[in-house]
Amino acid sequence: MKNRKTIHIEWGDCDPAQIVYYPRYFAYFDACTTALFKKAGLIKREMLKTYRIIGIPLVDLKASFIAPSRFSQDVIVESEITDWRRSSFCVRHRLFNEGVLSVECVETRVWAALSATDPDKIESIPVPQEVIARFSAGKFSAGKTGSRAQRKSLRKK
Amino acid sequence: MKNRKTIHIEWGDCDPAQIVYYPRYFAYFDACTTALFKKAGLIKREMLKTYRIIGIPLVDLKASFIAPSRFSQDVIVESEITDWRRSSFCVRHRLFNEGVLSVECVETRVWAALSATDPDKIESIPVPQEVIARFSAGKFSAGKTGSRAQRKSLRKK
Amino acid sequence: MKNRKTIHIEWGDCDPAQIVYYPRYFAYFDACTTALFKKAGLIKREMLKTYRIIGIPLVDLKASFIAPSRFSQDVIVESEITDWRRSSFCVRHRLFNEGVLSVECVETRVWAALSATDPDKIESIPVPQEVIARFSAGKFSAGKTGSRAQRKSLRKK
Amino acid sequence: MKNRKTIHIEWGDCDPAQIVYYPRYFAYFDACTTALFKKAGLIKREMLKTYRIIGIPLVDLKASFIAPSRFSQDVIVESEITDWRRSSFCVRHRLFNEGVLSVECVETRVWAALSATDPDKIESIPVPQEVIARFSAGKFSAGKTGSRAQRKSLRKK
Repeated sequence: MKNRKTIHIEWGDCDPAQIVYYPRYFAYFDACTTALFKKAGLIKREMLKTYRIIGIPLVDLKASFIAPSRFSQDVIVESEITDWRRSSFCVRHRLFNEGVLSVECVETRVWAALSATDPDKIESIPVPQEVIARFSAGKFSAGKTGSRAQRKSLRKK
Repeated sequence: MKNRKTIHIEWGDCDPAQIVYYPRYFAYFDACTTALFKKAGLIKREMLKTYRIIGIPLVDLKASFIAPSRFSQDVIVESEITDWRRSSFCVRHRLFNEGVLSVECVETRVWAALSATDPDKIESIPVPQEVIARFSAGKFSAGKTGSRAQRKSLRKK
Repeated sequence: MKNRKTIHIEWGDCDPAQIVYYPRYFAYFDACTTALFKKAGLIKREMLKTYRIIGIPLVDLKASFIAPSRFSQDVIVESEITDWRRSSFCVRHRLFNEGVLSVECVETRVWAALSATDPDKIESIPVPQEVIARFSAGKFSAGKTGSRAQRKSLRKK
Repeated sequence: MKNRKTIHIEWGDCDPAQIVYYPRYFAYFDACTTALFKKAGLIKREMLKTYRIIGIPLVDLKASFIAPSRFSQDVIVESEITDWRRSSFCVRHRLFNEGVLSVECVETRVWAALSATDPDKIESIPVPQEVIARFSAGKFSAGKTGSRAQRKSLRKK
């Protein structure tokens, strides 16, 4: 499953060089991850309640800034989960400006809950299979078996 | 040359999970790069005027989030330039919370000016030797020769 | 002319109390002012070039926060210009959450250019009549006369 | 009690007009309110725990932007509480750039807790007298009586 989100670049997202101030790209991408989950039927507020997690914080980030973008432009971000591991997953975002790949980013996030023993600690816990399933639903005509195989191969990456 | 900057984590830097919202770390690090240059005698506003550049935008970013930080905490960021290339350079930031490495980040930035032929374009141009020299000044008792050798070896990395 | 903009409240717009961090409302409203001008045919980037202004910065701001909003909610902001003066104007934004007025804000902005004598200074200059006209266009069947009268009465406020 | 906080204006706080993007001023002022309470011995994280509040959110805001500020400048913000009411209070911030008053802001905030009956609601509750006392401590040589009178007159406003 892939999500495409159009983002209007605002004046306030840009710096004195008149291009997007790069931390703002990560706010865009965070919103794109939220939108990707929503497309899979998982609205963030409800998802946190249902699965008793405190969020899906980042543990790793890689980004390449290929071309700058400017205020008043509309850009499109394509987002997809490229890898499911036991308690983490990777989200890749590709931002296109007039069809040109301008920023690419891979986030590694964890499925995180408060520690049962120490409520001041945050722990990663296994991603529920039903969550992962939502992202592969409808992908395979072969049904559950194919879906399971797919998830396995993704995990190997 | 290494710079150490103390940052007080503000309420507004944190998200509903009560930890730093990760794009805010990059705003911290951008300020730390500015502070590192200032320590080298290069105040951003003056540096842009003197060298007729529009900024030092990022082309690449890598970050690891090892432990979360929370509002009301003071953290220390150690910043240094780890690599000088022809028209780019790498800045490494390490954020410590109570002495524990909590976030590590490497920015690759370019020395950037408006294109002479197309003022709507931004181009990377060679970093002036005197800028690079400011970061190695005082490092070597052997004077200019040693300094030159150092820059060469840095470039090789 | 009134513009209505739907805004999805993002995780990163909220603070540890799990409600919108109030400076983010002003980023929303700034984007709403931009959208209002766009509806009047004035795309920000082009508007700055056409009229040789550096922006429409604020000189005064009033806001009431009536009810909090939370991430994953969609809110609607209604924006309109309530007053045109010689070189300034007022924009009123009303943010509704599930139909309930939750934030109200009045911005006073100036039409601003770099000073001709000192490029380090910013000056307010008269708002062009054709800009004002775009916001009243189609409002009056009586044509120009009515439009002029309207602007006058607005100015009196 | 008055607090003075020096703020270095960062590149990322400024917009394409090369001046502070106005929502950033409110992030400054929010940090200044936090610093004012800290000076009174109330560290935000501890204060929320001690008094079981979720924060001190805004209900009203007024600001005047008198002169712009730019990146690489250091500004000073003077903050003080000008009024204590039953469950709300006013904080005035005055931002000086090279001695010149450049932004003035009055925040009205409430002492806020989760509702006992509906944890999804936020309610304002009375500000504890000991909190108010911390801001007038040391103000009067006349001791407690003077201090009490002062608070009363403040409340009348």
